[in-house]
Amino acid sequence: MLTSQAVIFSKHGDPSEVLKNHSYEIDDSNVESDSIIVKTLGAPINPSDINQVQGVYPSQPEKTTILGTEEPSAVGGNEGLFEVLKVGSNVKNFKVGDWCIPSQVNFGTWRTHALCKEEDMTPLPNPEQSKANGKPNGLTINQGATISINPLTAYLMLNHYVKLQPGKDWFIQNGGNSAVGKYAIQIAKIQGYNSLSVVRNRDNLDQLVKELKDLGATQVITDEDNNLKEFGATVKSWVKDTSGEIKLALNCVGGKSSAAVARKLNPNGLMLTYGGMSKQPVTLPTSLHIFKNITSAGFWVTALTKNDFNLKRSTLDKVVQWYEEGLLKDAPSVESKFTGEKQLNQLFIDGIENSKNGKQLITFH
Amino acid sequence: MLTSQAVIFSKHGDPSEVLKNHSYEIDDSNVESDSIIVKTLGAPINPSDINQVQGVYPSQPEKTTILGTEEPSAVGGNEGLFEVLKVGSNVKNFKVGDWCIPSQVNFGTWRTHALCKEEDMTPLPNPEQSKANGKPNGLTINQGATISINPLTAYLMLNHYVKLQPGKDWFIQNGGNSAVGKYAIQIAKIQGYNSLSVVRNRDNLDQLVKELKDLGATQVITDEDNNLKEFGATVKSWVKDTSGEIKLALNCVGGKSSAAVARKLNPNGLMLTYGGMSKQPVTLPTSLHIFKNITSAGFWVTALTKNDFNLKRSTLDKVVQWYEEGLLKDAPSVESKFTGEKQLNQLFIDGIENSKNGKQLITFH
Repeated sequence: MLTSQAVIFSKHGDPSEVLKNHSYEIDDSNVESDSIIVKTLGAPINPSDINQVQGVYPSQPEKTTILGTEEPSAVGGNEGLFEVLKVGSNVKNFKVGDWCIPSQVNFGTWRTHALCKEEDMTPLPNPEQSKANGKPNGLTINQGATISINPLTAYLMLNHYVKLQPGKDWFIQNGGNSAVGKYAIQIAKIQGYNSLSVVRNRDNLDQLVKELKDLGATQVITDEDNNLKEFGATVKSWVKDTSGEIKLALNCVGGKSSAAVARKLNPNGLMLTYGGMSKQPVTLPTSLHIFKNITSAGFWVTALTKNDFNLKRSTLDKVVQWYEEGLLKDAPSVESKFTGEKQLNQLFIDGIENSKNGKQLITFH
Repeated sequence: MLTSQAVIFSKHGDPSEVLKNHSYEIDDSNVESDSIIVKTLGAPINPSDINQVQGVYPSQPEKTTILGTEEPSAVGGNEGLFEVLKVGSNVKNFKVGDWCIPSQVNFGTWRTHALCKEEDMTPLPNPEQSKANGKPNGLTINQGATISINPLTAYLMLNHYVKLQPGKDWFIQNGGNSAVGKYAIQIAKIQGYNSLSVVRNRDNLDQLVKELKDLGATQVITDEDNNLKEFGATVKSWVKDTSGEIKLALNCVGGKSSAAVARKLNPNGLMLTYGGMSKQPVTLPTSLHIFKNITSAGFWVTALTKNDFNLKRSTLDKVVQWYEEGLLKDAPSVESKFTGEKQLNQLFIDGIENSKNGKQLITFH
């Protein structure tokens, strides 16, 4: 028997109160033919994971007693990287030592081990496999554990809605310094799209601009520039220089910032909203809708990929390849290793508390 | 020779200052083979006509000296009903006595007569023709002169974007008492769609609700109801009763009202903005975009029909048929007849001034 520990919740509320430890046994001597046993290598703490626990997120894992809990419970977490420990006799896509991530959200990744069906997981190459394939780099645990949400969000927003012409067309985004923003800058660079990123002004602005340009940013401007009507002419001259158009805006801020990025779109442009950091609603001048035919839509990677696994899989393949080739840098996480010294639920509760200082990754290797 | 009088402008500004009279001769003894001469029966004053003269509207007629003006000038007005006086030898679609309207905007309808190419006009049945076709009603001058913008806007918003299921699905609109709003209520009724119209509260609310219900409104609510979170349950129960969804929202107000109508949309719903009476931008809570996949787009009949004349023509045919069958009521206009007593430009300047009291129609019959 193999003992798994999981961080579960049976009711919603403050994570420090509702997240509990649960130990349960997995019979690893008798794995069903279509099942696999995996051990967790790393699992991050995303804002949406926290909101799920709090009960303020529309996508929720089902609460069951399948793990032997007294009350129906769910395991926290949606992203994570796993290594295959055992495979059932009929399993086709996995062998021991393979790496994998959950095929869908709501798997419950905040645990040391899991017993699941083969189809619940989708493979990623482990570093030996990447090396054997002649790739310069293997995936890191952070890259594998955080691949499903931010890189996929950036790639799909840039490619699934509007056809940008490489070398010519642009996208504009606010929150240029966010994790998704940095992936969008890099992916645009790889694909040949021009990027215009809006960031908040700060003391070390030059340093941030340099960092984003090193990632491949075409232009970086401040919120003040973005809000200034006169600055529109500068943006137009940049776009004219590439004989392209700003066809796409990515908005994770809302309020005045969303109006200002939408204003920079060429006629018939699309703004995709994937976040609302300002807590202000998306705001769009009426004339942009009517006379410039600007459309404002939402983006949620969970909903988009839920019923289109092929889209998720083909996007994962692209991102993996870029990581292996060293074209894409991941957003670093603050890593805390589960050693047993601290209870697993406490490790995640502390991680949630520390999330304001940067994305937290709990590792198990 | 036939003398035409036109209301022209050579520069933009206050209509009372820039609208001038211009008389010019049309040689009606020698009409080119592909041309027709028409006389105006009626021409309305739309808000967009006024904005064109002021120079604050994105669609503008070209200013030329083709009518013999000293300075390059344009004739005001975009909608109007005309009667054919003369046809060139090769004209196929018109004979003397036919009624017609401009095929496109920016024709310049504020004049007594016009010489134009056959293709500049598209036919409407005159009352004798409707009668000969066995129709219970012929078009009135107001119906013909105001058919291109408001009824087409209402029909195309209801039918060109989202497929509403008759007997089941709903649309919601603010500005339910506007001209477009009343057309939308009636057209929805004819097509079997349920309508939920938001109107401003007022002393004689019961009378307005009765008027809209007599036009075919399914439900009429006030802005206060619309903004009240608790009222959402009532709306849901109405929609449940028809086993349908609110798939479409029509917004001509903006601000808080646009957020409140968008909130009532079912997941994947579309809000079309065609006006901004509150002068506030369109406002949409971020969560509606991300978690309900609500899309917000603009509607401008001019842009939509500019490159798709067949769409305009087939829509005109439907509206004409509903007028002829007595299924559709037009929005009444305040009519002023051009008798020569008052100069033509003064008649339009006074009409613009009186537009705050209701839509003005200048007649010439």
